[in-house]
Amino acid sequence: MAFEFIEKLGAPFYAFHDRDVAPEGRTLAETNKNFDAVVKVLKEEQQRTGIKLLWGTANLFSHPRYMHGAATTCNADVFAFAAAQVKKCLEVTKELGGENYVFWGGREGYQNLWNTNMKRELDHLARFFHLAVDYAKEIGFTGQFLIEPKPKEPTKHQYDSDAAACLNFLRAYDLLPYFKLNIETNHATLAGHEMMHELEYAGMQGALGSIDANTGDLLLGWDTDQFPTNIYLTTQIMLVLLKYGLAPGGVNFDAKVRRESFEPIDLFHAHIGGMDAFARGLKIAAAIRADGEFDTFVKERYSSFDSGIGAEIESGKANFKTLEAYILQKGEVAANKSGRQEMLENLLNRYI
Amino acid sequence: MAFEFIEKLGAPFYAFHDRDVAPEGRTLAETNKNFDAVVKVLKEEQQRTGIKLLWGTANLFSHPRYMHGAATTCNADVFAFAAAQVKKCLEVTKELGGENYVFWGGREGYQNLWNTNMKRELDHLARFFHLAVDYAKEIGFTGQFLIEPKPKEPTKHQYDSDAAACLNFLRAYDLLPYFKLNIETNHATLAGHEMMHELEYAGMQGALGSIDANTGDLLLGWDTDQFPTNIYLTTQIMLVLLKYGLAPGGVNFDAKVRRESFEPIDLFHAHIGGMDAFARGLKIAAAIRADGEFDTFVKERYSSFDSGIGAEIESGKANFKTLEAYILQKGEVAANKSGRQEMLENLLNRYI
Amino acid sequence: MAFEFIEKLGAPFYAFHDRDVAPEGRTLAETNKNFDAVVKVLKEEQQRTGIKLLWGTANLFSHPRYMHGAATTCNADVFAFAAAQVKKCLEVTKELGGENYVFWGGREGYQNLWNTNMKRELDHLARFFHLAVDYAKEIGFTGQFLIEPKPKEPTKHQYDSDAAACLNFLRAYDLLPYFKLNIETNHATLAGHEMMHELEYAGMQGALGSIDANTGDLLLGWDTDQFPTNIYLTTQIMLVLLKYGLAPGGVNFDAKVRRESFEPIDLFHAHIGGMDAFARGLKIAAAIRADGEFDTFVKERYSSFDSGIGAEIESGKANFKTLEAYILQKGEVAANKSGRQEMLENLLNRYI
Amino acid sequence: MAFEFIEKLGAPFYAFHDRDVAPEGRTLAETNKNFDAVVKVLKEEQQRTGIKLLWGTANLFSHPRYMHGAATTCNADVFAFAAAQVKKCLEVTKELGGENYVFWGGREGYQNLWNTNMKRELDHLARFFHLAVDYAKEIGFTGQFLIEPKPKEPTKHQYDSDAAACLNFLRAYDLLPYFKLNIETNHATLAGHEMMHELEYAGMQGALGSIDANTGDLLLGWDTDQFPTNIYLTTQIMLVLLKYGLAPGGVNFDAKVRRESFEPIDLFHAHIGGMDAFARGLKIAAAIRADGEFDTFVKERYSSFDSGIGAEIESGKANFKTLEAYILQKGEVAANKSGRQEMLENLLNRYI
Repeated sequence: MAFEFIEKLGAPFYAFHDRDVAPEGRTLAETNKNFDAVVKVLKEEQQRTGIKLLWGTANLFSHPRYMHGAATTCNADVFAFAAAQVKKCLEVTKELGGENYVFWGGREGYQNLWNTNMKRELDHLARFFHLAVDYAKEIGFTGQFLIEPKPKEPTKHQYDSDAAACLNFLRAYDLLPYFKLNIETNHATLAGHEMMHELEYAGMQGALGSIDANTGDLLLGWDTDQFPTNIYLTTQIMLVLLKYGLAPGGVNFDAKVRRESFEPIDLFHAHIGGMDAFARGLKIAAAIRADGEFDTFVKERYSSFDSGIGAEIESGKANFKTLEAYILQKGEVAANKSGRQEMLENLLNRYI
Repeated sequence: MAFEFIEKLGAPFYAFHDRDVAPEGRTLAETNKNFDAVVKVLKEEQQRTGIKLLWGTANLFSHPRYMHGAATTCNADVFAFAAAQVKKCLEVTKELGGENYVFWGGREGYQNLWNTNMKRELDHLARFFHLAVDYAKEIGFTGQFLIEPKPKEPTKHQYDSDAAACLNFLRAYDLLPYFKLNIETNHATLAGHEMMHELEYAGMQGALGSIDANTGDLLLGWDTDQFPTNIYLTTQIMLVLLKYGLAPGGVNFDAKVRRESFEPIDLFHAHIGGMDAFARGLKIAAAIRADGEFDTFVKERYSSFDSGIGAEIESGKANFKTLEAYILQKGEVAANKSGRQEMLENLLNRYI
Repeated sequence: MAFEFIEKLGAPFYAFHDRDVAPEGRTLAETNKNFDAVVKVLKEEQQRTGIKLLWGTANLFSHPRYMHGAATTCNADVFAFAAAQVKKCLEVTKELGGENYVFWGGREGYQNLWNTNMKRELDHLARFFHLAVDYAKEIGFTGQFLIEPKPKEPTKHQYDSDAAACLNFLRAYDLLPYFKLNIETNHATLAGHEMMHELEYAGMQGALGSIDANTGDLLLGWDTDQFPTNIYLTTQIMLVLLKYGLAPGGVNFDAKVRRESFEPIDLFHAHIGGMDAFARGLKIAAAIRADGEFDTFVKERYSSFDSGIGAEIESGKANFKTLEAYILQKGEVAANKSGRQEMLENLLNRYI
Repeated sequence: MAFEFIEKLGAPFYAFHDRDVAPEGRTLAETNKNFDAVVKVLKEEQQRTGIKLLWGTANLFSHPRYMHGAATTCNADVFAFAAAQVKKCLEVTKELGGENYVFWGGREGYQNLWNTNMKRELDHLARFFHLAVDYAKEIGFTGQFLIEPKPKEPTKHQYDSDAAACLNFLRAYDLLPYFKLNIETNHATLAGHEMMHELEYAGMQGALGSIDANTGDLLLGWDTDQFPTNIYLTTQIMLVLLKYGLAPGGVNFDAKVRRESFEPIDLFHAHIGGMDAFARGLKIAAAIRADGEFDTFVKERYSSFDSGIGAEIESGKANFKTLEAYILQKGEVAANKSGRQEMLENLLNRYI
């Protein structure tokens, strides 16, 4: 039973998809009844073990009903069904004390533009999110809403393709105050970005909510959902998490063992290896921050903006005319300094 | 001479980088003098031939001064120099009646995150754009400002990596009213998107400004800047341009012949082939729109949102509770219909 | 029933995986019995309809038995089972008059090098193929053996990753006389090659056996197995097929409709669209060959090797000393001519 | 001066391109004279410092003469010129005691298939290599010939795209006895392979000759030629080098600092960082081999082939009929064991 596995690992949190814990019935009413029966057990297990719910989420993509999407479907009934399903899942997440509620894109995207009205679909998606926010308020669910960026799979174009696409959407539809991002390594790299980039990009905009720690294979073009063991990766992740914090989010393994690792003990090897890799990354990141060499280098690198013409630029005092006058008088710019990429890469290796 | 080439092609517009038409001097003053001498000739040539200026732009990336970026440099003097250079280029673009002014990212990005303060760099970039907007107002330049999305090259991460990244940035810094996008095929595909996607995505947000018509090779990982000859591509582009319009933008070839095509006549083959490909794409797109089969299919596909529960969703009348009630009463959703991707792909082939 | 579908399409051939037509039993004996029952029906249907068998193949990858590969498994029993399964499938293919027998890599590859002895696995694979060749001789099966190159999926590294990897393997193990290649578009592009390249590369080495006509999406990193509709692609394919011939191979759709195209009529749209695309490609390719403009250009381009120093090089008369003497006397080389890529791309468009 | 730099680094070898050390003259005779003058100095420097020549190579790609390739050009004079240039470079490499001679593909490939006769070009390439082998014998040059696989860049398709393509070519043209491969990390990954794969693949075929240690960025689609600092990578490389040996090859940095690292000290940071990374990789690889845990796991994994039916398969005693009989009697195969990928990845981390 899963809680015993999590207890053995000593992990403080779990998470679930509604349909992974309880089967779909013939009607929504029956499905909800199935779900309620399981929720009762989950609650007891949480009390027995002290393990808490990191987040809940609704599976809006496996059932054929959702073949054209859920909130972005072309079938209004399907939108309604998805709304009813998320309503229930929000209630359950609240009941179980879930600290976040995640929307993963699922089939919210398109397979081709020939049959698609992208604008109308995105309007519907925003409407759906606003309804969720409204209902959370109504029932007093105060957990953090999260969106999980992912490009490609299962649709050719997923609307939540990367952090930038998600944040642009949230800004455009006035949803930014209510949502943060749940960043996953392999989703980042499939979108062409380093995991560290996506984390920093989200963090600097106040939108870093949680992470899925699965990694992938940069030479393969799909989401392999492997357990992370690369210390460089976990160090980079932990550096950004220590910088921006993550609460109420967490580090979740939405990962799976390889098909050939089919024995129960492989699950332990996988989870423990991943946790150890993050523990090492945390220690290294903490040491890097304590020493401050990287921080000092970066601070010094931009110091020309701390006073003089740089400070005037940042404060808004300078304009194109004053800047031109400054340069015409100066003749040429102050010399550039090396970016020292190689030195910094070597410095990192001292910590590995 | 270039104007004679454009005359022979019968093209109505040209465009330039400041440093492509006039060489850098030892000081900015000398550089500007060089530029003025050329601008005089350009003006005469425009008058003689009737060829107009589509856009001007400043080269803020070739000179070693810009190695760390221009507006996103870590060197405040370099920011000032870039400001002075763009100031001059705006004045010249206005004098020559330029209909747009383009910012291509150049070296506005980073090579690694270890030496980079991304937030500070993006703040500076926004400051730079606001200063440009302010100065354009001051001198009465009313052309459209354009940003050209591009991922990778010359930096590892370009801040303007795709339309979503650009639009998120413009929204975050209150620049959206002043900027549109200049979309390029190979930049779109390097970012993992179809050209048609980037055009539609920009268009539906009112941000489709102009296009660079160069194409690339989807099996190569860099910007090859080839002339477009694929009729599927030009048809897709023209379909979106006819839908949203492009004025005051245009279709620009920022392309080059292959290294092995070194004879003057190759330039004619290349430009004429590209123009012919767009002409065929335009005819096909016009026929598709006139027949309306695609439009009718898409309209019908979403028709469940035109009345009933769908209309209530779109109008904001529905909420999670009314939608749940609707579904509980209905039991299951109205049947989905096939997306008909294969039929639509065949339909497209009837026009090729 | 499938034969009726093929009859309606008017296609002259079909093909099968053993386990797609008959279910796995509890033992190999039972499985073979199931298979025999179906083969009887297939034979009757072939006689009734005149539809012939293009190729047979054994599914050596779906059953968990094959998780570590079939011929390249680390479990000797699995090798033996696979041998027995292919033995049966060869007998059936012979009985049904199959013109070819295909080996698709399935799980013949590795997930990681840490647990893998690649040399030993490839030795086993070669052994397996030799046993198949021997047995075919023994039973008098004279159909062509085919290998289907594919990189990635389901394993991280497939041993048959592209035409070059297959041919190097066949040469190394003295199997080249007995095997040709079955090339598939999406497998070619996942390996980083144009379909036309893989066809030409196989053809020029006498190893072009058959094709799987499915196409993919160059912006997605997995095998989408879509029906081909791009006329440029089908033209390129047909140009190479007309050049080298394909018998006893054929053009097979190992493709599937999109998940959202779930209605029976979508299968017709898909197959007919693919067949039409190939028919147009064939007509265009035939016209290109009849006109001979491309051929003439290429012949002329290499004409310096038809006489003089070029002919001496090709005939083996020249050596480094005579070539140095030739150049020292000549001073500099005869001028290069443009490769005319843009002109040739335009020329192609005249046929589309 | 370069030798002083190499002395400071304490590196035992250097390598060169002919045109990097001596400029092209107006004629080949003049060019060779320039070269001779430099060779005299190189020889003195080698004697003064004890630094030896790892390999020499001819630059057959920078001069416009080689725009269509060198040995694969369509211009017979260019083939002759390249032959004369390589003749000279072989003589010089012999004079300087070079331990290898490298052919890097340069422009040996095609930009498009429309203007290309791939078969004729590859025939010429093989002819060229045979002439080089013949001339080396004639002058008594006994160094190892090396080919450096690389896909893409500068041509769309490089004939030496990966180890498999090179080895297939060498086998097809009876060149395998005379050539080994010089493998480079970024070339491997651009071809879709792990560096460790390419090394193992070459090694198991007796064709691992030397390595270029530059690395790249897996999220960028071109050859970045960065200095390697990733310990996982250097460990993997060293594991294979210790397994197969490398003499007379070596580990060469054909790498460059980033454009922004423009100060002389950056060259030291880069080279020392790369050397340190390889030193750590060597220590880790040696420890892994000494402990033998990986080796033992792999040996055990394939042990079913060491006796019984497995041994009969390997020895050639088994055939399809005996294998079928074995399985029919046995009923089902011996149970598979987990591949333990996660455990092995964790094990690796114990050494990092």
